[in-house]
Amino acid sequence: MTGHLRIVGLGPGPEKWITPEVSEGLAEAQDLLGYTAYLDRVPLRAHQQRHASDNREELSRARHAIELAVAGRQVALVSGGDPGVFAMAAAVFEAIEKGPAIWRSLEVTVLPGVTAMLAAAARVGAPLGADFCAINLSDNLKPWALVEKRLKLAIEAGFVIALYNPASKARPTQIFDAFAVVREKLPPSTPIILARAIGRPDERVTISTLADADPALIDMQTLPIIGSAATRLLKRADGSHWVYSPRRVEVPA
Amino acid sequence: MTGHLRIVGLGPGPEKWITPEVSEGLAEAQDLLGYTAYLDRVPLRAHQQRHASDNREELSRARHAIELAVAGRQVALVSGGDPGVFAMAAAVFEAIEKGPAIWRSLEVTVLPGVTAMLAAAARVGAPLGADFCAINLSDNLKPWALVEKRLKLAIEAGFVIALYNPASKARPTQIFDAFAVVREKLPPSTPIILARAIGRPDERVTISTLADADPALIDMQTLPIIGSAATRLLKRADGSHWVYSPRRVEVPA
Repeated sequence: MTGHLRIVGLGPGPEKWITPEVSEGLAEAQDLLGYTAYLDRVPLRAHQQRHASDNREELSRARHAIELAVAGRQVALVSGGDPGVFAMAAAVFEAIEKGPAIWRSLEVTVLPGVTAMLAAAARVGAPLGADFCAINLSDNLKPWALVEKRLKLAIEAGFVIALYNPASKARPTQIFDAFAVVREKLPPSTPIILARAIGRPDERVTISTLADADPALIDMQTLPIIGSAATRLLKRADGSHWVYSPRRVEVPA
Repeated sequence: MTGHLRIVGLGPGPEKWITPEVSEGLAEAQDLLGYTAYLDRVPLRAHQQRHASDNREELSRARHAIELAVAGRQVALVSGGDPGVFAMAAAVFEAIEKGPAIWRSLEVTVLPGVTAMLAAAARVGAPLGADFCAINLSDNLKPWALVEKRLKLAIEAGFVIALYNPASKARPTQIFDAFAVVREKLPPSTPIILARAIGRPDERVTISTLADADPALIDMQTLPIIGSAATRLLKRADGSHWVYSPRRVEVPA
């Protein structure tokens, strides 16, 4: 049997958000690789080997997955969310580009999934209903000045902004710097969504405004969505809110 | 029984990309509403009523769905892709905001799905592996000058750009205008992906560069992804290409 590498996306948490294609891909695998917390979400099967690794070892995990597949194994490399959004797919192609020529003949399939911002948005209404962007806030792989530049340009463009990897133990203060940039450019009434552990038992979603949002509440498990100046809070009969970004833009460019 | 409105996302095409949550939501519905082409993808069930409508009637369809749910029905409003990305969810909350106060007590659930750009990206590698944005190219609801402004700022920010609704019979030339803007700002070697009818039997995905891409090939069914200056074409052993956007950014901001 020829080896095959599937890069699969589990979605943000529960089984109800895993596509049938991904479930099938996982069942067919002989080897499963991934960050421990993601592998723990995959049903155990007797014939499969598991290779769990730490969150920070993307490139060596990608290489390991490629090597197994090149050796003829059916391999599933597991990401949370969608594997193409700040996850394992880019690491795999980066490894292939830098690796031996034989790696370029490998069969690689990427199986898409529900990325976190879509699930977070769904919980509160339709904040991504107008033009939007997704920014990886981590400066592990790019200069912080570039993150700030992108935030400023995204606000100037009027994009709703989803922030991936907003904070970690090693980077506890950058989200405060990011909020400082955002507060300079957007009105205090701008809706802010903090979606923590979305779809998991400890899920906590808060809707507030830029004036009230507290960056100290944002950790590794949180996906913040920053509204545009056009994003609206819509009060429900029970006093809670929906958030949506109108499709129509009335303001001149 | 109290009425309930579910806004569901079918993903871009095949059943393998429909989440279990959406399949269950569709099975529980008494009334299904949506654009004809989307409803045609939902399995027929004897107890259900179908209300198909034209692609352009989002707001009246949203109102109809709300009215049915307020009257006590279990309603599923069907979108392709993800319902929160340039689809029905924003139209529903817009209708609720403008509608009678009683609508604000309605139970509304948005069920996320795989949006087209994730499936398109998965087909070719990992073009959305770095910061990216999604722009609705239609000027039905916003001035064209704003679309051009957003394209320019997105390129200045270094975002990969996914273009939704790039062309239609009523708007055949705007994609040429958009490409003119892009060609002014990005190098001719920038990778361009044209993903047409992704996941459906007539799928056609082409990978080229800004120098070679032909906007005349782009129609309503096509999702173009425009790489950033950092996005890479990676040649495979068989002569075809993968496309990916490196996670690491070496250039200064």
